[in-house]
Amino acid sequence: MPFYDIKELPALEIIPGCRTRIPYGEHLMLSYLEMDDGAEVPLHSHPHEQGGILLTGRMQLTIGDETRICEAGSLFLIPPNTPHRAVAVDGKAVVLDVFSPVREDYAERYNKYIPARS
Amino acid sequence: MPFYDIKELPALEIIPGCRTRIPYGEHLMLSYLEMDDGAEVPLHSHPHEQGGILLTGRMQLTIGDETRICEAGSLFLIPPNTPHRAVAVDGKAVVLDVFSPVREDYAERYNKYIPARS
Repeated sequence: MPFYDIKELPALEIIPGCRTRIPYGEHLMLSYLEMDDGAEVPLHSHPHEQGGILLTGRMQLTIGDETRICEAGSLFLIPPNTPHRAVAVDGKAVVLDVFSPVREDYAERYNKYIPARS
Repeated sequence: MPFYDIKELPALEIIPGCRTRIPYGEHLMLSYLEMDDGAEVPLHSHPHEQGGILLTGRMQLTIGDETRICEAGSLFLIPPNTPHRAVAVDGKAVVLDVFSPVREDYAERYNKYIPARS
């Protein structure tokens, strides 16, 4: 099914205060990420390239050695294997992240999370 | 530079009434697409997988043999080589599309479009 309604997708709490919905295909994984105020995705890196847009709220985003406060509508691209960190500031933040290739670790956890649906 | 401010990126009119800004990396291309009311991306296909989110407005989206009216916040994934078409309905629509692999045709046109900046 190529169309996804956020409200109909199960949410996976990957980190305390961070819930994601992650439809994915062959090369692309979308991650609709809701972050509570102050929630933090700690500094980490992975071989998958990551991009995205801040949909609502404000987010302190570190990519490599640069840190910025992003406003809604900001785009970003995180090269493979580049350390990055995100914190929701001044309230809840919602981000659409995209990964390529697909993050198999998320896919596996997501599939384990939703077997009741199949 | 991994951070992108929409307002600072040049817009490329790929189709009449459809303007895009397309930062891209190694595997991912983001396309921030603004569509005027009634603007149409005609039925087409490409080997690149495509996904995205409707940011604002309403969009009639056809993927393969399925057509839906998408509301803001709707996600979609278009498998490689699958015919698709989009029309902005009831006003302007803004979409964040993502492609993997990078669409070299867009990249070439975009780079030709912005040499005055470098």
